[in-house]
Amino acid sequence: MQQYRLSDLVSGLDVTLKGDSDCLISGVAPIQCAQPGSITFLTNALYRKHLATTEASAIILTPDEAEKCAGNAVISRDPYYVYAKVAAFFSEVPMHSSGIHPTAVIDATAEVDQSASIGPHCTIGKRVKIAAGVVLGPNCAIGDDVHIGESTHLDANVVLYYKTNVGQRTHIASGTVIGGDGFGFANKSGVWHKVPQLGAVEIGHDVDIGANTTIDRGAVENTIIEDGVKLDNLIQIGHNVRIGAHTIIAGCTGVAGSTVIGRHCMIGGAAMIAGHLTIADQVMITGGAGITKSIPEPGVYSTGLGGVVTNLEFRKNNARFHRLDNFMQRVKALEAAVKQLTERQES
Amino acid sequence: MQQYRLSDLVSGLDVTLKGDSDCLISGVAPIQCAQPGSITFLTNALYRKHLATTEASAIILTPDEAEKCAGNAVISRDPYYVYAKVAAFFSEVPMHSSGIHPTAVIDATAEVDQSASIGPHCTIGKRVKIAAGVVLGPNCAIGDDVHIGESTHLDANVVLYYKTNVGQRTHIASGTVIGGDGFGFANKSGVWHKVPQLGAVEIGHDVDIGANTTIDRGAVENTIIEDGVKLDNLIQIGHNVRIGAHTIIAGCTGVAGSTVIGRHCMIGGAAMIAGHLTIADQVMITGGAGITKSIPEPGVYSTGLGGVVTNLEFRKNNARFHRLDNFMQRVKALEAAVKQLTERQES
Amino acid sequence: MQQYRLSDLVSGLDVTLKGDSDCLISGVAPIQCAQPGSITFLTNALYRKHLATTEASAIILTPDEAEKCAGNAVISRDPYYVYAKVAAFFSEVPMHSSGIHPTAVIDATAEVDQSASIGPHCTIGKRVKIAAGVVLGPNCAIGDDVHIGESTHLDANVVLYYKTNVGQRTHIASGTVIGGDGFGFANKSGVWHKVPQLGAVEIGHDVDIGANTTIDRGAVENTIIEDGVKLDNLIQIGHNVRIGAHTIIAGCTGVAGSTVIGRHCMIGGAAMIAGHLTIADQVMITGGAGITKSIPEPGVYSTGLGGVVTNLEFRKNNARFHRLDNFMQRVKALEAAVKQLTERQES
Repeated sequence: MQQYRLSDLVSGLDVTLKGDSDCLISGVAPIQCAQPGSITFLTNALYRKHLATTEASAIILTPDEAEKCAGNAVISRDPYYVYAKVAAFFSEVPMHSSGIHPTAVIDATAEVDQSASIGPHCTIGKRVKIAAGVVLGPNCAIGDDVHIGESTHLDANVVLYYKTNVGQRTHIASGTVIGGDGFGFANKSGVWHKVPQLGAVEIGHDVDIGANTTIDRGAVENTIIEDGVKLDNLIQIGHNVRIGAHTIIAGCTGVAGSTVIGRHCMIGGAAMIAGHLTIADQVMITGGAGITKSIPEPGVYSTGLGGVVTNLEFRKNNARFHRLDNFMQRVKALEAAVKQLTERQES
Repeated sequence: MQQYRLSDLVSGLDVTLKGDSDCLISGVAPIQCAQPGSITFLTNALYRKHLATTEASAIILTPDEAEKCAGNAVISRDPYYVYAKVAAFFSEVPMHSSGIHPTAVIDATAEVDQSASIGPHCTIGKRVKIAAGVVLGPNCAIGDDVHIGESTHLDANVVLYYKTNVGQRTHIASGTVIGGDGFGFANKSGVWHKVPQLGAVEIGHDVDIGANTTIDRGAVENTIIEDGVKLDNLIQIGHNVRIGAHTIIAGCTGVAGSTVIGRHCMIGGAAMIAGHLTIADQVMITGGAGITKSIPEPGVYSTGLGGVVTNLEFRKNNARFHRLDNFMQRVKALEAAVKQLTERQES
Repeated sequence: MQQYRLSDLVSGLDVTLKGDSDCLISGVAPIQCAQPGSITFLTNALYRKHLATTEASAIILTPDEAEKCAGNAVISRDPYYVYAKVAAFFSEVPMHSSGIHPTAVIDATAEVDQSASIGPHCTIGKRVKIAAGVVLGPNCAIGDDVHIGESTHLDANVVLYYKTNVGQRTHIASGTVIGGDGFGFANKSGVWHKVPQLGAVEIGHDVDIGANTTIDRGAVENTIIEDGVKLDNLIQIGHNVRIGAHTIIAGCTGVAGSTVIGRHCMIGGAAMIAGHLTIADQVMITGGAGITKSIPEPGVYSTGLGGVVTNLEFRKNNARFHRLDNFMQRVKALEAAVKQLTERQES
């Protein structure tokens, strides 16, 4: 088991060490079950109660929390970021040897850098360009005219349709499909006719896309995912959508066609965002929200219903909801009656 | 760059041309950023404001909008349909050469028409029948006894389980899984036992299915997707569901088992439809709705909560929602009190 | 067509036969359209109306329902379980011959039992262990150090990332991705930095996982799916989640990171469960619920809004919802006014 000196793990990071900076660390652990030899972190107030009792050999935390910490502490304004850097020492992601697996089928017109790693059973189309350090897992299907930038990784069973453009250092998890046709059909006399989807998909640098997510190609112009965007699993991005740089979106979220989302937004899981909207920069949307209007200002926005109640209670409230307008009319009538009663009484 | 005379693009369509029918068109563009040489369309009132300023060489629009249009106009009652036909001139979808790729694994008992195109690394099971003009992308897995009708296209990494039947001119996007077991388990003493799923899936003609969608095989009878149905990405269709002809369903929607949806319905994104329901023909369900009852009449139906409010405001309303029944009781008490007050005052 | 004596179909099961136990059965059918020669079942009160008119040769039902049944009856406290056992006689799931398909790519250090069936175009990584009777469909990608237990079946195009551990007799449907990185990013100065996901995924025995579902690897410790859990299609399970034994979750549901769900829970479709929650054993959550708080006691819980109303009606109620707090303040003011009026009138 590889061990590191605490000071070596945080070397070069903007932190203050408290306690024994030479203590040996052999792994990371959650605060509530950390054993001696491990380093942990505290960023979520839910777990603060474990600070006094954790057996971790070191804790990464904020200056405020550090006061209550008796053990070895790594103090930072960005404890989760520091943790990310420390955890990287203990990562055991399998390495990929470069080269093209003999079972891969690569069109003669494709250009694959010799440092790239192309997994078994991949199919690579015409005029594809694959840059240095790219890794494709098994069974990836790369359509014609796709470009994949330096050091980008696609895990197993990823599909990039024709003309998709992916930047550098981007990561796409398994089962994700990028560049399928947008959902465009024109109705004539009750029958739906396909509207050709002439745009493509552009994915920036340092983007991370989870598993089984789908991003559709544009109807006319491209669907665009800007640099540094982070998308979780099972997300649907409709045609012509643009997602601004450094925006992060949690799983099971859908963004309907032609919506433009700003930079540095945070969108919770299972949010559903209607089409043709504009969301400003730095907007936070809470999980499960159903956004049907544009949001022109930064801030935290919500809809939907959260919480937890018994089904019995819920069914009563749900039934009431469907009479809410009628109910409001009754309150208005009461207000008028009380006003009249009051006036009469006072007269 | 290929150019077309405007009149040639709309030849054979039921349209009226206004302005220069010989103008040259080299592409399509959205109205708000169209350049000279491009054709655009106006079907969504949100974009009407760009009508006066667009630089497009021609616009497809309705008779009403055409009055306000100074440039070359293609006037139609179905402008989006006309656009679909025009855009097809500029489509550059890669062509597939016919033939079976040598890496495909095809059972000796399968019948593959010689005009079909079977991509690399496909696997085709026993007694499969693949008709003329069918295209399978890379890595498709076709189970035993599947039939695929003429000119149907499956993109990369599509899975059809055994006995799936797909009609003609149908298109299935990447990552979609058809014919997996329905979700049927019988509980005995706290343990779930699998209920065999004996039905299959039947997909009609001219159906379009998006990426990473799942359609389960029937428990006893078949799950059925009728002709002309259009399904978006990441949709879940449970066992025994029947979706009527020419119904269209947007992404992230789920339809639970044994529900029957009529013909010519339109179902918005992220709608959730419970099991064992019957939805009439020509029903429109808005995005995000949670449908828990059958809908016997055509019309537009909704549930859920849409809009957008600040989180602060939302949290107050959400908390109130969970007391809505109690609140209604208080309004009833007020009504009684006011009635009594009024009676006493009047007496 | 294979025929069975009714008594043979239920031999060994804890049932009572009424009527002709020698009648011949050649298939199963839904109660509303069963033909002579078929056996059906009644477990959902919605279908009780067909009991008098069904042409089925035998019906599986509870003692209560049996009184109203004139035909041959199989009476059981667990009719759906009995149906599951009977239906298995008529199942025609294709068999898999054992052996490794020559197109599969298997690392030299992997150990594959000779009774296992490895489909075409599979890729199996370093030090993988595949036990007796395992079946992998085409195009499965099995990462390094994965272990797959006896008699477990993976359908086509399943991805198991490195170090995933799957128990015995487990079934994973097509397109499902297990062990992708959890969604962990640390923000520093507006840019998201990846947090290494050091845990893995452990799947127990007798688990069933539907199509295109995603289960992320743990951030530090493992994500755990205990024995007998049943997951439907298009479900997202976040990192560090633990799902207790014999819990069943319907499609389109999301469980955010670090949430712990108890044993014997039932979670309806499209439920969204926030992160860092604890759900007790034997909790039932209804479809479409948005759970944002822990649930410490067994019971049935709900949130969200169900039902079905016309869009017109809904839009009024929805608008009112967003003024619910203001509305409640008005009711409180009314209560105070009425109290004052009453006091004055009585004085």
